[in-house]
Amino acid sequence: MSPHPFFRIDAPDQAITTLLQSKVDTKTKPHGALGQLEALAVKIGAIQQSLSPRLTRPAILVFAGDHGIVEEGVSLFPQEVTYQMVLNFLAGGAAINVFARQNGMLLRVVDAGVKGEFATHPDLVDAKIAHGTANFLRGAAMSDAQCHAAIARGAELAAAEIAAGSNVLGFGEMGIGNTTSAAALMSALCGLAPGLSTGRGTGLDAAGVERKRQVLEQALAFHRLDATDPLRVLAALGGFEIAMMVGAMLGAAERGALLLIDGFITTSALLVACRMYPAILDYCVFSHRSGEAGHARLLDELQAAPLLDLGLRLGEGTGAALAYPIVLAAANFLNEMASFESAGVSERSQA
Amino acid sequence: MSPHPFFRIDAPDQAITTLLQSKVDTKTKPHGALGQLEALAVKIGAIQQSLSPRLTRPAILVFAGDHGIVEEGVSLFPQEVTYQMVLNFLAGGAAINVFARQNGMLLRVVDAGVKGEFATHPDLVDAKIAHGTANFLRGAAMSDAQCHAAIARGAELAAAEIAAGSNVLGFGEMGIGNTTSAAALMSALCGLAPGLSTGRGTGLDAAGVERKRQVLEQALAFHRLDATDPLRVLAALGGFEIAMMVGAMLGAAERGALLLIDGFITTSALLVACRMYPAILDYCVFSHRSGEAGHARLLDELQAAPLLDLGLRLGEGTGAALAYPIVLAAANFLNEMASFESAGVSERSQA
Repeated sequence: MSPHPFFRIDAPDQAITTLLQSKVDTKTKPHGALGQLEALAVKIGAIQQSLSPRLTRPAILVFAGDHGIVEEGVSLFPQEVTYQMVLNFLAGGAAINVFARQNGMLLRVVDAGVKGEFATHPDLVDAKIAHGTANFLRGAAMSDAQCHAAIARGAELAAAEIAAGSNVLGFGEMGIGNTTSAAALMSALCGLAPGLSTGRGTGLDAAGVERKRQVLEQALAFHRLDATDPLRVLAALGGFEIAMMVGAMLGAAERGALLLIDGFITTSALLVACRMYPAILDYCVFSHRSGEAGHARLLDELQAAPLLDLGLRLGEGTGAALAYPIVLAAANFLNEMASFESAGVSERSQA
Repeated sequence: MSPHPFFRIDAPDQAITTLLQSKVDTKTKPHGALGQLEALAVKIGAIQQSLSPRLTRPAILVFAGDHGIVEEGVSLFPQEVTYQMVLNFLAGGAAINVFARQNGMLLRVVDAGVKGEFATHPDLVDAKIAHGTANFLRGAAMSDAQCHAAIARGAELAAAEIAAGSNVLGFGEMGIGNTTSAAALMSALCGLAPGLSTGRGTGLDAAGVERKRQVLEQALAFHRLDATDPLRVLAALGGFEIAMMVGAMLGAAERGALLLIDGFITTSALLVACRMYPAILDYCVFSHRSGEAGHARLLDELQAAPLLDLGLRLGEGTGAALAYPIVLAAANFLNEMASFESAGVSERSQA
C-alpha cells in the first residue's frame, strides 16, 4: 500500500548537539552526573534547535478503539469496557486523569473507533472511523480507506494541538483486545514468532496467553504479510486507535514536537510509523518499560532506553504522564542551572 | 558506643494494608497494572495509617560537610567546592534547586560541618559541628560527642520541618570526599571488601579508584571496627553531614514521616540508622539507583527496590526530588481514581 497521506519528517540538524553538550558540561555538577537526563536535554535541544528549549502546553492524547479480534476470547475484560473507560476518562476518574492533572498536562480523549455512540463532551474528540475493527483472524482488520482516514485524522489532531501551542505530546490508548493487535503488528513487522510478542494483557493466565498466541499464529499464517509494507500490515492487524496514533505521531514529528511514547500498544504504533519514516525516532522519548511481555523486546528492536521501569501495564498514556516531570527536569536543568563560572565553583583538577 | 540520643521507632501497624490493597484493587484498572506504584500506595497508607494518605509540605534537606580524608587525594574536585556549592544552593543555581522548585518541594540547606563560615541566609541552617572531619586514615573522623551532637541536631531539624507541616522529607548531601566516607561505612557495616564499595565518585579514573580503594583498606585495617556498633563505625568513618542525616532520618521516622532516600551517601546514612533501628526501613522510599558503583550493592543489602534508574550520580537529593512526583502519583491514584463500581465499569470475567 502506498504511504498516503505523505509526511515529511527530517531528522533534526545534529550540528547543535555539540553546543548543547558543551552547555551541559559547564553546569555545576561532575561530568555526566545527571545520567540519562543529560542525553535527554541534548535531544530536546536538538529537536527544538535551541540551546534553551522550552516545553509548552504538554498534552496527552488518548486514542480509543474496539477490536473485532476479541471474538476469539483474547481478553479477560468484556468489550464494553472500552466504551465504559472512555466515559471514565471523561468523568476524570481513570489513572491517566489523575497523573495528567498532577503533572499539568492537558488530556484529549479521541474516539477513533469505539463500539457505541457518545454524547458530545468538551474533552472528547469524535474521530470515529467505525464501530470497532473486523476480526483479523478472518480478514483485514480495516479497509485501506479506513486506515488512510485514521492516519490522516490522527495527523490533523496532532496538528491542532501543536497549533494551539503544544510542543510535547504524549500518546496513550484504550481498547479491549489491543495487546493482541499490537503483538500481531510486532510479530509481522519484526519477523518474530508470536511467542515473543504475546503477553498477559490485562491479566490472562498461562492458558489464556497460549490461546492468544495460537490466534496470532493463525492470523499471521492467514495474512502472509510483507514486513516491508507497514501500511498493509497496519490495515490487516491494527486497530483504529493504533492507526490514528500512527498518524498523530507522524503529524507531530513533522511539526517538530517532542513525542512521549507510552507502553506496548503505543510503541507498536511507533513501530509502524518508524518503518515508514525512520527519522521519527529522533523526536521520541520512551517513557517506560512496560510489564507486558513483548514490550522489552520491542524497545530493544527500536534501540530505546526508556526512562522508567515500574512494572506498569495499564496503557492510557500513564507511563508518558508519569515520565513527563523527568523530561521537564532535563529541559529545566539545561535552562536554569548555574555554570561553574557563573557560580564561582572550582572545576575539577586535570587528570 | 551507646545509642544516645534514643529514638523510638515502631513499625507501622500492618493491619491496614489489607484494606489498602482492597482499595487499590477496586480502582478502574487491571489488577496490578500500576506496578510498583501499587505497593508504594499501600506503603504510604500504612505509614500514615490512612486509606486516604496525603503528602504535605514536601521538603528536601541537604546536609553539607567537609572531610579530612580528602588529604589523601580521594577526590577529583578541591575541598573548597563543598563551600562553593553551598553558596550555589543558596543562590538557587544547583541541580537540586531546579528539581525541588519544579516539583514544589521546599529546600533546606544545612551546614553540618563545612570548612569556612557563611553569612546568614534564610534558606541556610547553621548546624556546624566543626570545620570538617578529621582524616580517618589516622584516627576517628569525629569524636563521640560530635557524633552524638550531629545526630541530635539532625533529629531536631527533621522535627522542626514536621512541626511546620511536612510529612514527607527527602534527604540529600554535599561534601567533597563523601563517597569515600560512605564506602567506608558500607564496607565496615556490611563486611564487604572496599573493592565492592569504592566507586568513581565525581569522576575518578581507574588509577584514582584504586588509590581510593587502598586508602579504605588501610583505614579499615587501622580502625578494626565492630559492625555491631554502628555508632562507633559512624564516628570513626562518617562525615558530619552523614551523621546529621542519620539523626534527621531517625527523627523523621519516629514522627511517622515518609523518607525519600537519595543516592549512595544518603543510603549509607540510612544503613547506619537501620542498624540501630531496623524499623526505619518501613518509612523509606528508595528514590533511585545511582551510577556510583557501590550503590546497587548497598540497595541489595537493604532489599530496596528503587523507583528510578537513570544513571544519576550527583547527590544533593536530586534523585529524591526527581522521584517525588512518582511518590505523589501513588498517593493520588489511591485518593482520586474511580472504582469499578463508582464508574460503572465492568470487572473482568472470572478465570
